[in-house]
Amino acid sequence: MFIGQGFDAHRFADLDSDRPLWLAGLLWDGVGIEGDSDGDVAAHALIDALLSASHLGDIGTLFGVGADSAGAGRHGTDMLAQTVHYLREHGYKPVSASVAIIGNRPKIGPHRGEAEVALSTAVGCQVSLTATTTDHMGFTGRGEGIAAIATALVEQVDR
Amino acid sequence: MFIGQGFDAHRFADLDSDRPLWLAGLLWDGVGIEGDSDGDVAAHALIDALLSASHLGDIGTLFGVGADSAGAGRHGTDMLAQTVHYLREHGYKPVSASVAIIGNRPKIGPHRGEAEVALSTAVGCQVSLTATTTDHMGFTGRGEGIAAIATALVEQVDR
Amino acid sequence: MFIGQGFDAHRFADLDSDRPLWLAGLLWDGVGIEGDSDGDVAAHALIDALLSASHLGDIGTLFGVGADSAGAGRHGTDMLAQTVHYLREHGYKPVSASVAIIGNRPKIGPHRGEAEVALSTAVGCQVSLTATTTDHMGFTGRGEGIAAIATALVEQVDR
Ligand SMILES: [Zn+2]
Ligand SMILES: [Zn+2]
Ligand SMILES: [Zn+2]
Repeated sequence: MFIGQGFDAHRFADLDSDRPLWLAGLLWDGVGIEGDSDGDVAAHALIDALLSASHLGDIGTLFGVGADSAGAGRHGTDMLAQTVHYLREHGYKPVSASVAIIGNRPKIGPHRGEAEVALSTAVGCQVSLTATTTDHMGFTGRGEGIAAIATALVEQVDR
Repeated sequence: MFIGQGFDAHRFADLDSDRPLWLAGLLWDGVGIEGDSDGDVAAHALIDALLSASHLGDIGTLFGVGADSAGAGRHGTDMLAQTVHYLREHGYKPVSASVAIIGNRPKIGPHRGEAEVALSTAVGCQVSLTATTTDHMGFTGRGEGIAAIATALVEQVDR
Repeated sequence: MFIGQGFDAHRFADLDSDRPLWLAGLLWDGVGIEGDSDGDVAAHALIDALLSASHLGDIGTLFGVGADSAGAGRHGTDMLAQTVHYLREHGYKPVSASVAIIGNRPKIGPHRGEAEVALSTAVGCQVSLTATTTDHMGFTGRGEGIAAIATALVEQVDR
């Protein structure tokens, strides 16, 4: 059994931007989010946790960085599915994963089940979500953006 | 074996407030802490980690949010014990858990053993505590509040 | 199997300082980092995760705090190796570990393999590294310092 840790943070887009808000595999109303890909911090932190547990680098290794990268314009769940495929090619399989989302919005609770289905489907194992705020402290508390901390367990399988 | 990640942060109360400081199941001297419940970030982050590992939502799911919630005015260790009871009803049992506390104060070291006993007793498995500062950076470094990152392993048991 | 969580953050040194930048067991070019020891946040967060998983306190317990501490002036990888020796004396052995580094610099990617070898050699099990930024938000995003979140699994062995 191997363990991985991942972290990600993205900034909310300007109000006059037409960026949508993708988070935990779902599209949310209200403010948009920045990012070369869809800016889904939950998916990206999970990708890092899964790759790290499998000793296969991080999201930058697999998808590159910047507007011309292989991740540019792609959805977090697509990238997650590709990550899991890459793990399998290298003899690893996700066992369990969890993401803690930190931010003032969106309100995760009413859509947690849906988001957990989206992430669990992409990863192929149980993925759970928690959400919390920071009492108006720090960049998440000031509403500048969203952060996510993820952890994952993987095991080795026959290729 | 399932893994969970939890995070929480609360703001120190005003100096003229009569809020106490509950942290990691203990009452500490000095400044108080805000929060609808007792504001125990270590207990709350642990609750999120345990619920997430068991795919049972987060602290808001179980206790609600705000001054009228089921968690209002309650101690973190009571809430932890209820969380573990809830896990057992759903066929899960804590295996191991750990919390990293981030803040300038209180100094955890001299009371770490006591705090670990309080949390481990509430959870029913070994719970360990670390404590660190952020070199005067960020909201914890400026002394605005305390944060905690928790992780937990749970296993399925017969109900 | 026991799980541990660790966190650390250190501030970049003044430009006219002669402090070097040690991170993840390697010496990096450019700006230096503060800290009583070598300021290696990845190594320190890992030490906390390993000690916590083994219910043996944290880096302050083992190495003390401040300029006169046992960790003063020492390299993170030396401290990691001593930590693992201490675990073994108490009947614990690292199984797997992972660190997420959060900061604008240095660029970890080109030296990830080297850093993973340095940390894995010190710990005696697979240690993986991810690296991310925070979209210019918070103290890491403003380039004030570096943070690291670590997690580790340990198991009990015959002493
Ligand atoms: Zn991202
Ligand atoms: Zn709380
Ligand atoms: Zn340190």
